Amino acid sequence: MAKYALGLDYGTNSVRALMVDVSDGTEIATSVFNYSSGDSGVILDPRDPNLARQNPQDYVDGFFATASEVARYVDPGDVVGIGVDTTGSSPMPVDSRNMPLASDPRFKSNPDAYCWLWKDHTSYVEAAAITETAKRMSEPYLAKCGGVYSSEWFWSKIWHCLNVDPEVFDAAHSWVEIADWIPSFLCGVANPADIHRGICAAGHKAMYSAQWGGLPSKEFLASLDPRLAALRDRLYNLAVPSNQEAGKLAPGVAAKCGLRPGIPVAVGAFDAHFGAVASGAKPGTLVKIIGTSTCDCMVHPSDLPLADIPGLCGIVDGSVLPGMIGLEAGQSAVGDTFNWFVSELGVAGHEALTAQAEKLRAGESGLLALDWNNGNRTVLVDPRLTGLIVGLSLHTTAAEIYRALVEATAFGALTIINRLEEYGVEVREVVNCGGIAEKSPFVMQIYADACNRPMKVSRSGQTCALGSALFGAVVGGAYETPEQAQAAMTGVKDRVFEPRPEEAAVYARLYPLYMQLHDAFGTARDAGNMGNVMKDLLSIRSAVREHL
Amino acid sequence: MAKYALGLDYGTNSVRALMVDVSDGTEIATSVFNYSSGDSGVILDPRDPNLARQNPQDYVDGFFATASEVARYVDPGDVVGIGVDTTGSSPMPVDSRNMPLASDPRFKSNPDAYCWLWKDHTSYVEAAAITETAKRMSEPYLAKCGGVYSSEWFWSKIWHCLNVDPEVFDAAHSWVEIADWIPSFLCGVANPADIHRGICAAGHKAMYSAQWGGLPSKEFLASLDPRLAALRDRLYNLAVPSNQEAGKLAPGVAAKCGLRPGIPVAVGAFDAHFGAVASGAKPGTLVKIIGTSTCDCMVHPSDLPLADIPGLCGIVDGSVLPGMIGLEAGQSAVGDTFNWFVSELGVAGHEALTAQAEKLRAGESGLLALDWNNGNRTVLVDPRLTGLIVGLSLHTTAAEIYRALVEATAFGALTIINRLEEYGVEVREVVNCGGIAEKSPFVMQIYADACNRPMKVSRSGQTCALGSALFGAVVGGAYETPEQAQAAMTGVKDRVFEPRPEEAAVYARLYPLYMQLHDAFGTARDAGNMGNVMKDLLSIRSAVREHL
Repeated sequence: MAKYALGLDYGTNSVRALMVDVSDGTEIATSVFNYSSGDSGVILDPRDPNLARQNPQDYVDGFFATASEVARYVDPGDVVGIGVDTTGSSPMPVDSRNMPLASDPRFKSNPDAYCWLWKDHTSYVEAAAITETAKRMSEPYLAKCGGVYSSEWFWSKIWHCLNVDPEVFDAAHSWVEIADWIPSFLCGVANPADIHRGICAAGHKAMYSAQWGGLPSKEFLASLDPRLAALRDRLYNLAVPSNQEAGKLAPGVAAKCGLRPGIPVAVGAFDAHFGAVASGAKPGTLVKIIGTSTCDCMVHPSDLPLADIPGLCGIVDGSVLPGMIGLEAGQSAVGDTFNWFVSELGVAGHEALTAQAEKLRAGESGLLALDWNNGNRTVLVDPRLTGLIVGLSLHTTAAEIYRALVEATAFGALTIINRLEEYGVEVREVVNCGGIAEKSPFVMQIYADACNRPMKVSRSGQTCALGSALFGAVVGGAYETPEQAQAAMTGVKDRVFEPRPEEAAVYARLYPLYMQLHDAFGTARDAGNMGNVMKDLLSIRSAVREHL
Repeated sequence: MAKYALGLDYGTNSVRALMVDVSDGTEIATSVFNYSSGDSGVILDPRDPNLARQNPQDYVDGFFATASEVARYVDPGDVVGIGVDTTGSSPMPVDSRNMPLASDPRFKSNPDAYCWLWKDHTSYVEAAAITETAKRMSEPYLAKCGGVYSSEWFWSKIWHCLNVDPEVFDAAHSWVEIADWIPSFLCGVANPADIHRGICAAGHKAMYSAQWGGLPSKEFLASLDPRLAALRDRLYNLAVPSNQEAGKLAPGVAAKCGLRPGIPVAVGAFDAHFGAVASGAKPGTLVKIIGTSTCDCMVHPSDLPLADIPGLCGIVDGSVLPGMIGLEAGQSAVGDTFNWFVSELGVAGHEALTAQAEKLRAGESGLLALDWNNGNRTVLVDPRLTGLIVGLSLHTTAAEIYRALVEATAFGALTIINRLEEYGVEVREVVNCGGIAEKSPFVMQIYADACNRPMKVSRSGQTCALGSALFGAVVGGAYETPEQAQAAMTGVKDRVFEPRPEEAAVYARLYPLYMQLHDAFGTARDAGNMGNVMKDLLSIRSAVREHL
């Protein structure tokens, strides 16, 4: 008799529910809910481009809308477990009953009481101060997150709230990553102290490690602000992997969506980590989840030696798979950059641009871009970097720029691969998943050419949701380990994008120029002579055009 | 009884005729002819973005169409003289009867036999070789043209033709700037040896100077290619200013356009030089002719000392006004860059973008651009430079980029002013003319703010054509000197664009960053630390937005 697991994937603009057959990963039913608040689910401030928030009501509405939809396709008695993944670090203030402060009438229209979405960069000053303080106090906290604390992360955001909106900070009993809060809501947890916090969010974003006894010490936090030290007592002491339960589905919640009360709900994690598991993450396999941004995940056996890799945003034991060190890198904007070009600039749509850009050869446009329109997450870990395009002429077309933006993200991807390998983590296979990997053979082929490596694509079009369902299956008892569930439920597509040698040869000439710009604008190192950049691009352009 | 002069202004996309009352410069009638060949009059090669040619038939058709139109508004007997200006350096091969090779059936569809338009950059290899050879042979030829010979200029283009299309080169009896050829056509000159060549084109583009006896020596030319030395004999030994006659209007030409045969025609010159005169060029006044590109003109009394100013494209005695050293600088793309953004990228039109961009404050976008989409003419004199934009975010709008492109050209303008003043040529007044000065208060205000100087606008909307008419009036005997004609026929508009202190203060912070990029990408000097650029732009952005 078939058994099913429900996976929920909370993205930047929408939530997806996926009902999966646990025996082989077959996707039975799916449903998407577009958040109704803000601009496609993101609350913005026209006066501050760094601000990005979400209304938690969208999470609740999205759950009921999508879960009830997919529950109708199966016998509720056959659903064995539920998993939840979300964006992150996306922390949210809650009151002492675990209710989002956003639902408090006092803060109804105050974005500081909302969820602070991963791509909110308002706290860059605090992030820099955390980095500086940790270094000054010789604390080990940053060794696992690339040596630089980010404005996208837990403590920066909370501290910024304290600095700019103390009323919200004081009203918050605790702060919870939505990856932890949504499972706690499903299970009816009415006290933040009872939330089962995930190691994924804690280890990657909150400087949590068993190595130093959990969250950073009160002494360290007090040196930032004494009120942060006081908050520590109302956070958590333990964080666990997602093969453990967050709780059981609460009767009130179950009744409203046609599911059986008491179904085990897995501890939540970030979308990319579940997507990595559902794409076959194992030692040697880099999984790239490519959507608005990317998350790049690898695992490394916990019992093998591993250096702290500078510029990687996370190195956390158990964060992807139990018994493995999860390595997380990422690109701050990929699909977001392509969408920006199409929607903010009002040029032709993705399809038309792709059709034209696909006909171009590598190097033919003479353009080179830096993929930093939303800062750089890996390997520079600096949100205060911006996009750059060089090589513009009076004949440059929109399709050429579009392609240059794609190529820039491909070079960003290669920079991550190179960094991993420099520190002894061999990348033997790259599996891509997420919207862009799924929908754009054009982008995948450029990634293969620019990285000069085959690019595989995960079989499921909904890997994050599938990963959620996979952990639902594990906590529901269908499998003993995530690896067993992976073997049964996941795989890659037949079509592999192989690098084309002629294109790869041109990219091998362009990439050093990308790195020259990368190091010049992204580091404090002396840039040396830059006068070659424009001329080299023109020479490459000429050489390519001669062969057309 | 009223007397009139006819001015003809041959631009990149069209020719304009202007009939002017010589007593006060009143514009009686005007007519524009859009060239019918190529892409808005410019023949392009999709495989080589450096190529830009024109079909001389357009010049002839344009003359008859526009001259006959404006001739109808006056009594032909009252037209005292004709002046002609054109783009340049735009040389053209002609046969022994002074017929364009393009009209030879053998070369009908061969763009190498056409006019090599000013913005043709196919000869960049030859340009570099000319620079290198002149330096190696310690020749003085480059001292008057910024130290670097350009691919936009006479000898580079002819030599490139020799190298890539010897059949055309061999068929050419002589090469003529269209500034010289069009007057010669009007006067029925049937032998290239009889053309009166203008000092403006010769001195600025062909390394002609009385100081070394005219054109470069045969020895020098032979060291480039012996066939160039042979060509020298079929070029010219003397070049003269435009207060001299090119000849008299030929009966056959006069009959076809309703003008009186025998009217004096002035020696031709480049559009910008005539525009400068019609904008009131005098010592201390910089005239910027702003159209697809700019030409920046000043004059300096011939009897006062003047250093050779590095990076200026021309320093030629008598080229603008007799008895004055003409100083020419320029920006390779201004209107062309704005048009590129609107038409190649397919974003909103100029009006909509201007309306939005006008509402922005300096620094508000966080963007900074280099105005090099068509290379850099002054002060770097390097066509192998390209456009660059930095500071892009996911919120960057088309209007912000549009404004950044305008600001980049303003910074380019400031760089020219600074270079002049560094070498002792004080700029006490800036008068702008040309299409952009005429049509865009938005651009003029940014120029005033970015340069922190008042920007005046020439009274006439057709200064180049007016300048042609002015020299027509001089050769027609209405005035003894161009200065007398200036006093009577020219002036500036009442509206002066004054710098706004708050905006100027922001631009004073942005300009050093522009210069940092300028020197890093445009010179061979060590760029030093570039890591400040993106962060400084973000800091300026924050500071400006806080005051919104």
